[in-house]
Amino acid sequence: MSEINSTTVTVSHDGPIGYLTLTDPRRRNALSTSTMQAATTALREFDRDEGVRVVVVRAEGPAFSAGHDLTELVDRTLDDEEAVFATCVELMTTIHEIRQPVIAQVAGPAFAAGCQLVATCDLAVASTTASFSTPGVRIGLFCSTPMVALTRAIGRKRAMKMLLTGEPIDAATAADWGLVNDVVEPDALDGAVRDLALQIASSSASTLAIGKRAFYRQIDESEPQAYRSMSSTMATNAMTCDAQEGMTAFLAKREPVWSDR
Amino acid sequence: MSEINSTTVTVSHDGPIGYLTLTDPRRRNALSTSTMQAATTALREFDRDEGVRVVVVRAEGPAFSAGHDLTELVDRTLDDEEAVFATCVELMTTIHEIRQPVIAQVAGPAFAAGCQLVATCDLAVASTTASFSTPGVRIGLFCSTPMVALTRAIGRKRAMKMLLTGEPIDAATAADWGLVNDVVEPDALDGAVRDLALQIASSSASTLAIGKRAFYRQIDESEPQAYRSMSSTMATNAMTCDAQEGMTAFLAKREPVWSDR
Amino acid sequence: MSEINSTTVTVSHDGPIGYLTLTDPRRRNALSTSTMQAATTALREFDRDEGVRVVVVRAEGPAFSAGHDLTELVDRTLDDEEAVFATCVELMTTIHEIRQPVIAQVAGPAFAAGCQLVATCDLAVASTTASFSTPGVRIGLFCSTPMVALTRAIGRKRAMKMLLTGEPIDAATAADWGLVNDVVEPDALDGAVRDLALQIASSSASTLAIGKRAFYRQIDESEPQAYRSMSSTMATNAMTCDAQEGMTAFLAKREPVWSDR
Repeated sequence: MSEINSTTVTVSHDGPIGYLTLTDPRRRNALSTSTMQAATTALREFDRDEGVRVVVVRAEGPAFSAGHDLTELVDRTLDDEEAVFATCVELMTTIHEIRQPVIAQVAGPAFAAGCQLVATCDLAVASTTASFSTPGVRIGLFCSTPMVALTRAIGRKRAMKMLLTGEPIDAATAADWGLVNDVVEPDALDGAVRDLALQIASSSASTLAIGKRAFYRQIDESEPQAYRSMSSTMATNAMTCDAQEGMTAFLAKREPVWSDR
Repeated sequence: MSEINSTTVTVSHDGPIGYLTLTDPRRRNALSTSTMQAATTALREFDRDEGVRVVVVRAEGPAFSAGHDLTELVDRTLDDEEAVFATCVELMTTIHEIRQPVIAQVAGPAFAAGCQLVATCDLAVASTTASFSTPGVRIGLFCSTPMVALTRAIGRKRAMKMLLTGEPIDAATAADWGLVNDVVEPDALDGAVRDLALQIASSSASTLAIGKRAFYRQIDESEPQAYRSMSSTMATNAMTCDAQEGMTAFLAKREPVWSDR
Repeated sequence: MSEINSTTVTVSHDGPIGYLTLTDPRRRNALSTSTMQAATTALREFDRDEGVRVVVVRAEGPAFSAGHDLTELVDRTLDDEEAVFATCVELMTTIHEIRQPVIAQVAGPAFAAGCQLVATCDLAVASTTASFSTPGVRIGLFCSTPMVALTRAIGRKRAMKMLLTGEPIDAATAADWGLVNDVVEPDALDGAVRDLALQIASSSASTLAIGKRAFYRQIDESEPQAYRSMSSTMATNAMTCDAQEGMTAFLAKREPVWSDR
């Protein structure tokens, strides 16, 4: 049974896919503290659920997410403000920490922390209705935490323009800049994400977990250090049952059978 | 009154925009030591001028800048050479350090340190006449300091090709690679830069200053450290008058009034 | 005389170009331990050969390289596995360490460590027949060492999709993402690489060596530290005979004569 007890975040399953759905369309899926906490809890549950091999983050209604709930940021103490952003950082960090690849399924506007959520997910597929912006500068609150994920996804000049102007970019531009992997028609979005998720889920869960952890480890290391880490990671990976099975099956031209199936 | 006393660098103002203009077209706006020092001084004056909310770097004549003045690098001591490059690094660092966003307005060739200047500015808008190269390799002097900005703007393989061949790229390629944000027809360049500058200038100056400083702080940090820094930056930003005004105005669906207007 | 004694790696010369050719098309130029060791030895010989000013890495047959030899990774001890990946890392590191620019000439599939080899070379030119993938995930062995080079070449989301799905990308996509510099028709590949190599080889060998070393030094440094390193590198470079000759020739509008010609 799920520990999630939230009206703004819903968890569901479809075979090996775990869906985390933002279900607060009336407030454009604002990332309130309670929503972010529920999302973090849901992700940690997925992490412990061996049946879940891929996670999809999606949203109900015409907007993906409008970002933080501003009412939680007005007339507060510094401690209050710090608590909100600490909760946000915990959510983003958890996306990188769980075992499963996380795919953002984006329809409609993904703004501010909503844009950050997309930038943070391992993969992202967008509908042609999607748009992305970091508009905090227009209301006096520069999108400094979204900037961490955004600059690492799309590079300096492009991130700087989004951050300094607050202007949105469309889905095609987001794909061109590497913020999302693919753009599809609105009615093809569910299917495209499901197909991608199932394709990934057909690989060994333990191999995916090794690879995802390795990805975020090496990316912040110097290249020589990254090679030292990854050389060791690959040697250990090669000794696992699933790697031995996978290589043996490949050499024998048969399908592999993973240890957790 | 301006402290600048230079015939090769001119400072002017247009409302909230501070213009730094290279005015040595006869020498293709070479970045001589005196020109670089005057430009650095001008930028620091802008930094102290509360009326300046955005800075534009542009140039007179058909070339943006041909790069260093080679006559300053021939038949010199090592101390002389070091002084030239230290002056150059000081100019580039100052662009990142001043409070205001800095936009490069580029028409014609931007070569070597001229290309570096564009790569270093926070944003860049190019005319279709613009071209970019790091041709030092052709004259025995590899563009190693321009490389710092260039690799961080356009990535490894593309930077390496420019550096190893010295071949120029055109404006469209520069936009495709993220070296400039936009490309416009020559007669639309002034207007496009002005519009972009005014759009940015309409935001809170203190928020822009917080955001710009944060950008260059987080970009060299590991992702976990960047999140720690930026979480703290955003909480502090949220407590400022302009953020409280901006969020309150947004929730009330009215225009914000910034503290410095 | 060459120290290389290998049937799977062949060394040849064409003027200033040193060719390292993978000559094991029957096994799709698999990077077996002996092949990787021979390639590393060949690169180090080029490094000591003053006549070689540019290195080209290419392959015989319809595939560039299928990656590691899986038979070396099945039923082995951890020490064995570690030895394979250490040999691979040594090859990749050597590509960055030798004095000469290294160009990958890619026709056909470049998979896993073959894809890494392309990502690691300083430059890459691909035939329209080229394709690139990191399919280890499909056989239980995540491409963690190829990931080091791949993420640094094409960015996060795109690398993550290749790594999590194992799906190949074509040559045009590789160029769009910055994994290769140029794509040409199959029958133009030899000529395009040769022209690029000769153009680079016409520059001063000592300047190329200074620049290449500087490139990999600065890229892992923070921006302020990179500027300190490169400012010093450029000042020292400017004092070399070839830089003094190159600048003097440029100012006199004559062709330079490099010290090693």
